[in-house]
Amino acid sequence: MTDVAQARNQQGAPGHADAGRGRRRAGRPRLRPASDTEVAPRAEILDAAAELFVSQGLAATTTRQIADRVGIRQASLYYYFTGKDELLLELLTQSVRPSLRVAAELESRCRADPAAGLYALALIDVATLTHAPHNIATLYLMPEVQAAEFASFRAERAQLQAVYGRLGQAAAGGGGMTEPLTATLLIQLVESVIQLRRAGEMRDYGHEIAAACLRLVGLGPAEVIRARAAAAGLTDSLAG
Amino acid sequence: MTDVAQARNQQGAPGHADAGRGRRRAGRPRLRPASDTEVAPRAEILDAAAELFVSQGLAATTTRQIADRVGIRQASLYYYFTGKDELLLELLTQSVRPSLRVAAELESRCRADPAAGLYALALIDVATLTHAPHNIATLYLMPEVQAAEFASFRAERAQLQAVYGRLGQAAAGGGGMTEPLTATLLIQLVESVIQLRRAGEMRDYGHEIAAACLRLVGLGPAEVIRARAAAAGLTDSLAG
Repeated sequence: MTDVAQARNQQGAPGHADAGRGRRRAGRPRLRPASDTEVAPRAEILDAAAELFVSQGLAATTTRQIADRVGIRQASLYYYFTGKDELLLELLTQSVRPSLRVAAELESRCRADPAAGLYALALIDVATLTHAPHNIATLYLMPEVQAAEFASFRAERAQLQAVYGRLGQAAAGGGGMTEPLTATLLIQLVESVIQLRRAGEMRDYGHEIAAACLRLVGLGPAEVIRARAAAAGLTDSLAG
Repeated sequence: MTDVAQARNQQGAPGHADAGRGRRRAGRPRLRPASDTEVAPRAEILDAAAELFVSQGLAATTTRQIADRVGIRQASLYYYFTGKDELLLELLTQSVRPSLRVAAELESRCRADPAAGLYALALIDVATLTHAPHNIATLYLMPEVQAAEFASFRAERAQLQAVYGRLGQAAAGGGGMTEPLTATLLIQLVESVIQLRRAGEMRDYGHEIAAACLRLVGLGPAEVIRARAAAAGLTDSLAG
């Protein structure tokens, strides 16, 4: 590489163009480096893929477009990913796995206080969905996501939904809705954050949505306040 | 068409292989009429379009495929619709307009009892979504639906959402969530029926979801029972 090419590459390396210029817009088109020797990391490719999938749909998006957006050659993209399906699976998985990981932990620690467990899970799940790149969860309902390639994602989301159902039923003390219906309504309520992000509403809705989940299963104001306090202890210890 | 070709067409026509084998799949491919003089009505075309849009996505669906499924020529489809966009707009509109129509009526009649109005609206909206062909509302989040062509649908859905917000705030008696957040969470909860239909859960969830909406805005069990009874009077008089 020549010095000039190297200098351009350093300046033009994905994500470095506007370093220090305040808020960086993820995934926007970048200057294409003169050389492809420094390939962009996986995260850059995933971010660009998420933006294109969400803005123009899966069918219309090509790996060429994704590579162009990152500023790498298509061949370099294939060094990291086998193709569109793997990119989408990785993005979908990232939008559910962090929540599923804590869900199992919360469930085992909250047998005596399922309301606190439900509150903490909703709070953490809202955070996961809020940070998923480019609101990737808008793709959950796409026909393409029902294909066999994405079975592992669907299974993880189903597991998360089942934890909502068990915590919700336990918190409600039985009576009322069936566990599968409770599970569906609770995860649906948490996924409202997808709609809120789409509408450009960017403040943190965690506590409001978590409280709404508890009211949904029939808990009153005093119980919601108590569960919120108990959940704070839980999330602190999970983070620690 | 030769006799042989006709026989093959009858036997081999997609969807007829399993005729009489129990449950009929709605919107399945139909026998192609020998002549095209009997054009299929709008409803048949809309139903076929809905099935293809939902099962394989918008981008992958052509008007040719839709016409084939109905058993008419592509040119006949264009006699009724200008193309895919008009079909999709009509389907989306059908999934929201019946609810929006009663929403305005309910709002004006329930100033003194917003909880009953909210219960009745949720009940009617669940019914609208339950009867929308092929669960067409799964397409709400598709990038294509954000295009200018579908602005009128998005505006009607936003109006419906706003009614949920006003009824929800009035029923809750202020305090707690903002009206836009209330609106988003309530419509999201009602649209759980989309998820339930996708999961193959076909029983009527109207009353369970309507009750969940009232709990969400903070009403207790006694208030929910009272609102349900009052809503019954409302929906009867709307139907009459």
